[in-house]
Amino acid sequence: MAAALRAEQTDVLAANARDVAQARAAGRDDAFIDRLTLTPARIDGIADALGTVIGLPDPVGESVDARRLPNGLEVARRRVPLGVIGAVFESRPNVAIDISALGLKAGNAVILRGGSESQHSTGALVHLARQALATAGVTADAIQAITDPDRELVRELLQARHGVDVVVPRGGQGLIDFVTETASVPVIETGWGVCHTYVDASADLAAAERIVVNAKTRRPSICNALDTLLVDRSMAAEFLPAVGQALADKSVEMHADAEALPLLDGLARVVNIEADDLDTEWLDLRMSVVVVDGIDEALGHIQAHGSGHSEAIVTRSLANAERFLDEVDAAAVYVNASTQFTDGGEFGLGAEVGISTQKLHARGPMGLRELTTYKWVVRGDGHVRPL
Amino acid sequence: MAAALRAEQTDVLAANARDVAQARAAGRDDAFIDRLTLTPARIDGIADALGTVIGLPDPVGESVDARRLPNGLEVARRRVPLGVIGAVFESRPNVAIDISALGLKAGNAVILRGGSESQHSTGALVHLARQALATAGVTADAIQAITDPDRELVRELLQARHGVDVVVPRGGQGLIDFVTETASVPVIETGWGVCHTYVDASADLAAAERIVVNAKTRRPSICNALDTLLVDRSMAAEFLPAVGQALADKSVEMHADAEALPLLDGLARVVNIEADDLDTEWLDLRMSVVVVDGIDEALGHIQAHGSGHSEAIVTRSLANAERFLDEVDAAAVYVNASTQFTDGGEFGLGAEVGISTQKLHARGPMGLRELTTYKWVVRGDGHVRPL
Repeated sequence: MAAALRAEQTDVLAANARDVAQARAAGRDDAFIDRLTLTPARIDGIADALGTVIGLPDPVGESVDARRLPNGLEVARRRVPLGVIGAVFESRPNVAIDISALGLKAGNAVILRGGSESQHSTGALVHLARQALATAGVTADAIQAITDPDRELVRELLQARHGVDVVVPRGGQGLIDFVTETASVPVIETGWGVCHTYVDASADLAAAERIVVNAKTRRPSICNALDTLLVDRSMAAEFLPAVGQALADKSVEMHADAEALPLLDGLARVVNIEADDLDTEWLDLRMSVVVVDGIDEALGHIQAHGSGHSEAIVTRSLANAERFLDEVDAAAVYVNASTQFTDGGEFGLGAEVGISTQKLHARGPMGLRELTTYKWVVRGDGHVRPL
Repeated sequence: MAAALRAEQTDVLAANARDVAQARAAGRDDAFIDRLTLTPARIDGIADALGTVIGLPDPVGESVDARRLPNGLEVARRRVPLGVIGAVFESRPNVAIDISALGLKAGNAVILRGGSESQHSTGALVHLARQALATAGVTADAIQAITDPDRELVRELLQARHGVDVVVPRGGQGLIDFVTETASVPVIETGWGVCHTYVDASADLAAAERIVVNAKTRRPSICNALDTLLVDRSMAAEFLPAVGQALADKSVEMHADAEALPLLDGLARVVNIEADDLDTEWLDLRMSVVVVDGIDEALGHIQAHGSGHSEAIVTRSLANAERFLDEVDAAAVYVNASTQFTDGGEFGLGAEVGISTQKLHARGPMGLRELTTYKWVVRGDGHVRPL
């Protein structure tokens, strides 16, 4: 698959150009077009990512908690593939190959459904992947795609309880809501993140500024990017003008609450916050800025508005650091670091299928192991269970 | 809770007597009445089970895969409670206490909904449990029960995506289907089992007979009990009359296919198999008996009719044993042992919430650890992610 992606880009680029033209005609914004667009360099990047997956250890067959029970039965949990994985995703066509590679490496079959916006790109990529499978002597049907735009087919996928073992939606909240509400097969929700960074009274302000700017601007369009900055009242007057200037220099639009607003006075792109802003995943260079009264109010704000993705505190107080780690209920909780680290590669998983924001099966970045289950393997010697 | 269950049985027994009287009036069968009935000894048994849970190690706070990354970030997965666990169950009132105890031990809140048949028993048990919580200085609302028989309330529970983290149904297939089809919160399916034991050509026939009789008759009403016996053609004429006699002695009714029927000739309670029988979870002293042509046909039969619960082979062939363990896709796969071992206590989990027949999150017996999730805890020192 990696070799084919490097050698046979013409069809994929042509198909992608059709998708991009349609998206432009439909008036989609630049961020959307950017996520959708494939270039030779980006396709090489997808092939490189395949190389990483190839190099990962195979999780299948691993034996967990093996032991001989007092009655002589040998019991172990053996890691096995989940089976058939459905993936429903939007816009970024590389997802088709990423999920196929990870699914296949963990011994699964994959059924893909890309967004209608990327249907030609997905179709071309899957065609290439299936040819590569056949060449390698693997059944091409281990990777399948639903390219017919009929939405009824997605509904069938989501309700195929005896044929599909899990569905992973990757996309915005609308997609995730549709999938969780429609599916009767198990779902792993991924991706949606309203992420906070709380700058505590005792924070190292220079480090806080670096962390906030990185969390917001390194890549604003990904789910672990900062959405709302919470600043403790006691040092807001000192910190906000400085961080505001640094953010303004990066063209960030700040939606400031009544207390933050005067402290950002004179900066470009500062507007009054609106109520909905606090529950908004911006995915661009906008953010909310809120002044809070210490860690209790910060924790309350995150509980009320966080989506359970990635949350950070910047502090020099050990007590507040530990409280934050203990009390914030999210997939990833940080002390003195940028939330943009929430990523399978960064966390040492090698690659990721997505970032789970639910608590069942997998939480946070999902790697190969999260695409497996286990079976209990029991070896006896004529054992019967006593009454 | 354990002390209260031993000391204050009067109200619980009175409430249970009302449920039993209603069930008798409704014409429910003996197996149902038996599962529903509480006695002082059975209540003591529930208290004993609580003692076991008290003795289990606390899974919360465990650190998994902790490491320092090359960039200096310290990353660990910390085991934390799932949050709020919904449990929807039928008839057996002890489930209310079992799930409450396991849920609470793993740091969760529990919302219970028993069957309408056991509503008085469940109500009395939960009342007692909540009093015990309050006495211990824990909020009584950590255990809640929906006792109003209005089914709309169950629907609300199953769709409370932002308040309930997982729902565990325990009961027959009808209940499980209703829950998986209605729920938008994550579900762990439990309990339903069409279980096979395949007696291979090379089996030790004396061991096979012991295993089959135990798997069927030790407790026929539980989900890991044998439903369909598969016998290899090459030794069916030798094995079936002997095992048939042993089963008949235990009052088992055998639904035999055309090949098995003449080999069971003259035994009491032998009838012709019907098509539906092969997909039936009997839960009583009936079973199906089918002759197959070797391990391939046995594997095919189990793939077609098994529910992914517990499956066994009796054999002296190492190759067939390993093939069976590899190829059967079920929560528990056995060589030369009774399927009735599928149980959290037997597998060393100490206790169980149920037996998962799905592949996500937990498979087979679910203990305390399966009632937890994890969060990624990341400690930095001003770390920002490079581009």
